[in-house]
Amino acid sequence: MSRKTTTKAAKSIQIMEKIRVAVVGYGNIGRYTIQALQAAPDMEIAGVVRRAGAENKPAELADYNVVKNIEELGKVDVAILATPTRSVEEYALKCLALGINTVDSFDIHGLICDLRRSLDAAAKKTGAVSIISAGWDPGSDSIVRTLMQSLAPKGITYTNFGPGRSMGHSVCVRSKEGVKDALSMTIPVGEGIHRRMVYVELEEGASLEAVTAAIKADPYFASDETHVFQVDSVDELNDVGHGVNLVRKGVSGQTHNQLFEFNMKINNPALTAQVLVNAARATLKQQPGAYTMIEIPVIDYLPGDREDIIRHLV
Amino acid sequence: MSRKTTTKAAKSIQIMEKIRVAVVGYGNIGRYTIQALQAAPDMEIAGVVRRAGAENKPAELADYNVVKNIEELGKVDVAILATPTRSVEEYALKCLALGINTVDSFDIHGLICDLRRSLDAAAKKTGAVSIISAGWDPGSDSIVRTLMQSLAPKGITYTNFGPGRSMGHSVCVRSKEGVKDALSMTIPVGEGIHRRMVYVELEEGASLEAVTAAIKADPYFASDETHVFQVDSVDELNDVGHGVNLVRKGVSGQTHNQLFEFNMKINNPALTAQVLVNAARATLKQQPGAYTMIEIPVIDYLPGDREDIIRHLV
Repeated sequence: MSRKTTTKAAKSIQIMEKIRVAVVGYGNIGRYTIQALQAAPDMEIAGVVRRAGAENKPAELADYNVVKNIEELGKVDVAILATPTRSVEEYALKCLALGINTVDSFDIHGLICDLRRSLDAAAKKTGAVSIISAGWDPGSDSIVRTLMQSLAPKGITYTNFGPGRSMGHSVCVRSKEGVKDALSMTIPVGEGIHRRMVYVELEEGASLEAVTAAIKADPYFASDETHVFQVDSVDELNDVGHGVNLVRKGVSGQTHNQLFEFNMKINNPALTAQVLVNAARATLKQQPGAYTMIEIPVIDYLPGDREDIIRHLV
Repeated sequence: MSRKTTTKAAKSIQIMEKIRVAVVGYGNIGRYTIQALQAAPDMEIAGVVRRAGAENKPAELADYNVVKNIEELGKVDVAILATPTRSVEEYALKCLALGINTVDSFDIHGLICDLRRSLDAAAKKTGAVSIISAGWDPGSDSIVRTLMQSLAPKGITYTNFGPGRSMGHSVCVRSKEGVKDALSMTIPVGEGIHRRMVYVELEEGASLEAVTAAIKADPYFASDETHVFQVDSVDELNDVGHGVNLVRKGVSGQTHNQLFEFNMKINNPALTAQVLVNAARATLKQQPGAYTMIEIPVIDYLPGDREDIIRHLV
């Protein structure tokens, strides 16, 4: 075999070798992540890790390994943590210790720097990479916010969410006495101010007035305009659509009135899953350590040849 | 001096030391670049390089070194090339050979990969860094396009420009016989299609009909709806405002109808200058070589402490 042939063969093998990704946690985001991985040309599903293991394995996972422990999956390049935010650190530390890259959509803004430090140290120990808070906010919105800040260093940015369901607010309402199920919709009223439209299904005998008072008194709602409605079925209102409107007006150099805006209307878990898959791919192109999305070149989120991407998108 | 004091002093010196930037070329973009550098907290103007040197030095440059040759400016960390696009490569190669980082707003989309290869080789020879095509399109728009592509890998992106002056189209009209001065406005009509509104000041005796026919026959205009108007003074129409509307509708994972949009209304040279200054800063944080803007983490375009940026923008 000539040297040239060897090189070509080696290259073709390299092209063929797909990134082996495990999905840890199998709720809403986990399901959409499997779909996004199936659509990714450069990835292969190593399997799903969940507490129940293969027990009552969902039909759509028939072709995949479903296990209790990531070590049962053989070679895994990246673990996508589709777990609740509060469990991210624990699972990430476990994977990183095994030398497996991790991505997550950790969404408690105030704790992101702490998580980054903790995972950075763990990742560097084994030469692994972690990309944290890789959803749409924090996540892709953070990239847009940072870009806008750079384009007009002086000025104000407003992030307006919705219309769309707020998980945190819905959970808060569900915890109130007399509430069987609840949905809190976030409605943008501009300048980062939001109206809360709350739909509740009540327990028998519960009073709407008392529930409304309890909701409005909660710190989650106290500073926002809040409306509470009783409905027969919260489930019938269920829609995973969401949106964002990011606005910045500011100064480029010494020139005022520079106007920037980013809008999206999206299926929330589908976009989160896509961002997680993009971040998983990007982990393989970074030096060991932990990163937020704004610390990664955007080109690294895409599959394919670098010059080809530059030719089409720059 | 205790070890601790030394470290602190060293750190304070490091914080104090500003990035020394030279501006090469002093037209419209050069002037706005000086303004943006004056507004940048971490930068210092090393001087301006222009063909005329200090001869007829403009009043606003009174405090600065204005020279014919960059080597006359002492230590320069980065050269911002505010030259015509066609001269970028020549000046960049000269600076990189001297070990000076460069940034430019080279805007011929089809030649970006060639420029990147040429400057990459030159930069690596001296351990320098070059960031190319750092304007708003190509440039910051490229970052948004790449991000949108990653968020919905299948779908269509439309880049709608304007309303705003097209330099290329204006220059084309000025080259026509009988045209004294011209301005071609780009008007977006959606889906990446543009209308051209052309304002011409004619030479005495020139025929508007003949000029209109010549413009409409030119490949620059042939495929766009084009309207030509005669005016007394093109200069009186002059406004450097511009805009963009970037739209993508596509598929995240396997979920269709994901909608993304980026809009801006901006002073064109002021934004270009700000992007150049941001890129100049970012050169100091990269490994030797040449990069387009999508290959740089967006956080690197900002001054200040990394964790601080993450805390405020992620």
